[in-house]
Amino acid sequence: MLTFYYATGTCALATHLALEYAGANYQAVRLDMSKKEQQSPEYLRINPKARVPALVTEQGVLTETPALLLYIAQTFPQARLAPLDDPFALARVNEFNSYLCSTVHVGHAHRGRGYRWADDESAHESMKKKVAQNMGDYFALIEGGMLKGPWVMGDAISICDFYLFTVSGWLAGDGVDIQTFPKVALHRERLLAHPKLQKVLAAHQLVS
Amino acid sequence: MLTFYYATGTCALATHLALEYAGANYQAVRLDMSKKEQQSPEYLRINPKARVPALVTEQGVLTETPALLLYIAQTFPQARLAPLDDPFALARVNEFNSYLCSTVHVGHAHRGRGYRWADDESAHESMKKKVAQNMGDYFALIEGGMLKGPWVMGDAISICDFYLFTVSGWLAGDGVDIQTFPKVALHRERLLAHPKLQKVLAAHQLVS
Repeated sequence: MLTFYYATGTCALATHLALEYAGANYQAVRLDMSKKEQQSPEYLRINPKARVPALVTEQGVLTETPALLLYIAQTFPQARLAPLDDPFALARVNEFNSYLCSTVHVGHAHRGRGYRWADDESAHESMKKKVAQNMGDYFALIEGGMLKGPWVMGDAISICDFYLFTVSGWLAGDGVDIQTFPKVALHRERLLAHPKLQKVLAAHQLVS
Repeated sequence: MLTFYYATGTCALATHLALEYAGANYQAVRLDMSKKEQQSPEYLRINPKARVPALVTEQGVLTETPALLLYIAQTFPQARLAPLDDPFALARVNEFNSYLCSTVHVGHAHRGRGYRWADDESAHESMKKKVAQNMGDYFALIEGGMLKGPWVMGDAISICDFYLFTVSGWLAGDGVDIQTFPKVALHRERLLAHPKLQKVLAAHQLVS
């Protein structure tokens, strides 16, 4: 049995959706970041980075969304969530996820978590001002070719779709109208309607 | 034949080392970022992100360091650069690489590339001031357990080692004394002396 630590409004959603889609046997534990539960001594023993997601497996604790997504794809191969035996196609999957974690997520984080990279509030304000432009630029690349359609990698759903859905959910708060990117908007609608994912979407307050 | 685009002083070093170690048949093309060659129309057709690294394969162009590293490990399995058939061990590899790309590289980039996340120079100055502290915090985690020793994953060299070496090379410029982290410093010395890697290290002006 896996134990999965998450918080709403975070990138943990991607891993949560993958676990659910794959039919994993897991227990989900929600942390309340408004109460700084991710910084409790108990949680720091699980994940010293004080972040979510974290997945407790029988072999140890795993973190970092791209790593967790590939782990789920590899340990639940019947779910066919990644082209495990096609190195080029798998590299496309990892390339997409790596772009989301190192560029898109980071761009978004400059809106509310500027304190990570500067101490003074005027710098935080400057960062906030640029978030909409950056997220728009990143999603222009995604719309322009990275998202093949209807799913990210084409006809079949993959771990990339859970991650893109997670990140595209931040656009509105970041000041970007998702309708500027019709393929991304349609992708979002399609995943929101997926029957396998309703329970997790409800746990993250994305559907009622 | 692969074509590999890189620039000195960038994270492309990690992929370059992996290609060389794996014995790949590749042509390396150096871009001069001081001349903004990464923004030339020719290069933008190869990589619209205007970044390095980029690897041109017979199937298409691949980017993003963690994706390239795993691609090389998977296409040159005889080099044994990743535990491809052990999902947990592979997740540890991907977790490490993901941390480097989304946290450590990003932290470092706030020293010289603050313009990515804010438009005014006072914000860039604020970001620069925090880089040494952040890089020190990140490397404390690496020293404290992520780097098992002597190589990142233990006794065997892996793609993680090329990436850690790349990033630990930025510490001095970021205002962090690598000797604060003895395991990281020793790891750096060990890789610098690796006979298979001297040609690439010289191409990046890291050995004479």
